[in-house]
Amino acid sequence: MADLKQVILIRSDLGMSKGKIAAQAAHASVEAVFNSNKKLVDKWHRSGMKKIALKISSKEELLKYLSMAEDMDLSISKITDAGHTEVEPGTLTCGAIGPGPEGQIDKVTGELKPL
Amino acid sequence: MADLKQVILIRSDLGMSKGKIAAQAAHASVEAVFNSNKKLVDKWHRSGMKKIALKISSKEELLKYLSMAEDMDLSISKITDAGHTEVEPGTLTCGAIGPGPEGQIDKVTGELKPL
Repeated sequence: MADLKQVILIRSDLGMSKGKIAAQAAHASVEAVFNSNKKLVDKWHRSGMKKIALKISSKEELLKYLSMAEDMDLSISKITDAGHTEVEPGTLTCGAIGPGPEGQIDKVTGELKPL
Repeated sequence: MADLKQVILIRSDLGMSKGKIAAQAAHASVEAVFNSNKKLVDKWHRSGMKKIALKISSKEELLKYLSMAEDMDLSISKITDAGHTEVEPGTLTCGAIGPGPEGQIDKVTGELKPL
């Protein structure tokens, strides 16, 4: 089986603090794990849970990449913030793709830069 | 049952980038979920997965809080980075506590500031 990884796509246009980014990224990662096939998650867990945070510059861009991933049957998460603190209620802050085969995920997000 | 939350403790003394912090925080969060009781995780998931990132200023401080949490039978994770990029191999970067009852977790980390 191919190497597995997860990518976390985080909007850089919202000016979120480091702490906000950390919590939202964790939220996206865990939610995508819940949305994934359990056997795939177990294998990914045993192999070290490779994950990387990537930079997204708008809501539209984030939705585009998540939709591409869904079209490839990759598991995803979309995180909307309750907006108690730094952003407006209902703001889409980030999302995650996978865990899934590295090659498939790279077809979707291979051009994105690390956050 | 009490409200549940997870706290993610992140070292601010390592000068990690936002992207590094995001990936390490997600790692800590997911690993602590794997280490937790499944019923507790399900309840936390259904209630919105409350989580917050807190600021830690040294390895010793991080170990101290995680040890206090273990002594209270809270689930934890400790994340050591492979050191391919920003930090030395084997560096303890962060950890998470919970999900667990908010009151119990606040007894451990209630004095810490948000990251």
